Amino acid sequence: MRALYIEDGSLRYSGDFSTPRPGDGEALIKVRCAAICSTDLEIVRGYMNFNGIPGHEFVGVVEECGDTELVGRRVVGEINIGCGACVFCERGGQNHCPNRAVLGILNKQGAFADYLTLPAANLHCLPDSISDEEALFVEPLAAAFEILEQLPVGPGQRVCLFGDGKLGLLIAQVLAGTGCDLVVVGRHSEKLAILDRRGISTVKGTLPREGRFDIVVDATGSAAGVTAALQVVRPGGRVVLKTTVADPGGGGVDLNRLVIDEITLTGSRCGPFPPALEALERRSVDVIPLISRTFPLEEGLDAFSWASRKGVMKVVVTMGGEG
Amino acid sequence: MRALYIEDGSLRYSGDFSTPRPGDGEALIKVRCAAICSTDLEIVRGYMNFNGIPGHEFVGVVEECGDTELVGRRVVGEINIGCGACVFCERGGQNHCPNRAVLGILNKQGAFADYLTLPAANLHCLPDSISDEEALFVEPLAAAFEILEQLPVGPGQRVCLFGDGKLGLLIAQVLAGTGCDLVVVGRHSEKLAILDRRGISTVKGTLPREGRFDIVVDATGSAAGVTAALQVVRPGGRVVLKTTVADPGGGGVDLNRLVIDEITLTGSRCGPFPPALEALERRSVDVIPLISRTFPLEEGLDAFSWASRKGVMKVVVTMGGEG
Repeated sequence: MRALYIEDGSLRYSGDFSTPRPGDGEALIKVRCAAICSTDLEIVRGYMNFNGIPGHEFVGVVEECGDTELVGRRVVGEINIGCGACVFCERGGQNHCPNRAVLGILNKQGAFADYLTLPAANLHCLPDSISDEEALFVEPLAAAFEILEQLPVGPGQRVCLFGDGKLGLLIAQVLAGTGCDLVVVGRHSEKLAILDRRGISTVKGTLPREGRFDIVVDATGSAAGVTAALQVVRPGGRVVLKTTVADPGGGGVDLNRLVIDEITLTGSRCGPFPPALEALERRSVDVIPLISRTFPLEEGLDAFSWASRKGVMKVVVTMGGEG
Repeated sequence: MRALYIEDGSLRYSGDFSTPRPGDGEALIKVRCAAICSTDLEIVRGYMNFNGIPGHEFVGVVEECGDTELVGRRVVGEINIGCGACVFCERGGQNHCPNRAVLGILNKQGAFADYLTLPAANLHCLPDSISDEEALFVEPLAAAFEILEQLPVGPGQRVCLFGDGKLGLLIAQVLAGTGCDLVVVGRHSEKLAILDRRGISTVKGTLPREGRFDIVVDATGSAAGVTAALQVVRPGGRVVLKTTVADPGGGGVDLNRLVIDEITLTGSRCGPFPPALEALERRSVDVIPLISRTFPLEEGLDAFSWASRKGVMKVVVTMGGEG
């Protein structure tokens, strides 16, 4: 089969990969399309020391599966694969299993290929009302919904979101859906315009008044975003860190400020698929404006270099009809 | 009146201070005794740039007050004095009022003196069953109880506390009272022995197994404690920062670890007096073994230098019968 893969620190393309064989409880999935996430770009730069096929945002069709009801179904998949034996897996927390594999990120070949395998338990069937392009956003949208799993957000709360990247635009729509009093701080007029059109308040470049917000979400992917978040959160307020940062040293965190102002800092990663699927079905979140461009798999290297350009949003890789 | 005071970066003693005049809504309190907190030692070293009379852990008797019921009563006092007009004060959160004064710490003369003034609303009357020496611990014990206001702690939870200093020993007893599965990591055998005698598990020097604890509390006052806390907390777990640190740069916080393992970091400061008073009345917390030595006010400079010695616990300053 065809695939993009990382070897010796660079991304390559090959038409000579063997089709993977599904393990116990796994399904073989024919990939229809996959999207490039910021994490993929970081992985190509060496993050996680991953070698192999990247890609974890995908839509595919089940070709083989022990659960025959799944065969032929169009699916998306949760990306964490727990060991099934530890206390985390026992409590349904495979996202935090210390021995987990993660699709296209850690010990598991990913989605920029004609085929992938995943445990059948990780799969969610797609209703016809959600297109392939929309379904590519289920995984990052689930990550956005994770915030609501971690803390209550709703009417009357003043919420500030930093970041108008791909994930930021999803988080903005999820937060706006709670009825909270939201402002999004970004740096790109054309991205903020997507939110403006949906009636979401945005600010370009400037920092809102200090100490004003009950909840501040940082989705900038930079330590500077964390510093800014800590500036605008109110005493007793909460800061949610939604993105890993290139410089993880944490120079931006004044621990004494956390103590004196009793601020809570919460890291947030993968989230639940069902509310993401429901939001797409209800059209309460609009993801199509977030797609920048689509490339066929053979042009995957171009797709990645396009996705690396400043200001580019979601880049989609399609596998075409034939494998 | 007599008082210890900080001027030009050093602690001094004088017998020539004027007795303060209580402002609107304030009480005049004759101080019976006051205790030296680690924050006081930091303040003498320049923390908060405070000039004036330090001291915020005290027991006294009300001499003058608009509320005549309070006159003659033995009291302790909450140390944050809100502006009374901001949104924090309106919601009962004067601890976080941006314009607050703090007794002996910020814009308010403190307790190492014959007299102090505080708003009557800040005072809590002491029952006879709590001695002066015990009552000196109400304020730091309230800070320990603040943890329970911020997150649920109870049976079945694995909790690790770093720090066997004055505050650490109080926090240990408060946490143990919740029925959680607690281990305290300290560095001083004689301090840990106080907890051992109360049936609390302690470990000297070594780090418990990584990633094991649901909740980790850092009361070491050092950035190294934060680093250690982040090592032993489980994915999805919570770290409570209970002490300000001398190096607040936050070098110990790996922001990516917070995100990937969805860890929550909560700063914790002043707390509620009622549960602290109740714990002392019920004798569920034993504070007397924490007192190292008592000095009269005239020997206050000696008291501070004694309190600065390694391993010394609570040092008490008594004002004597006459002012």
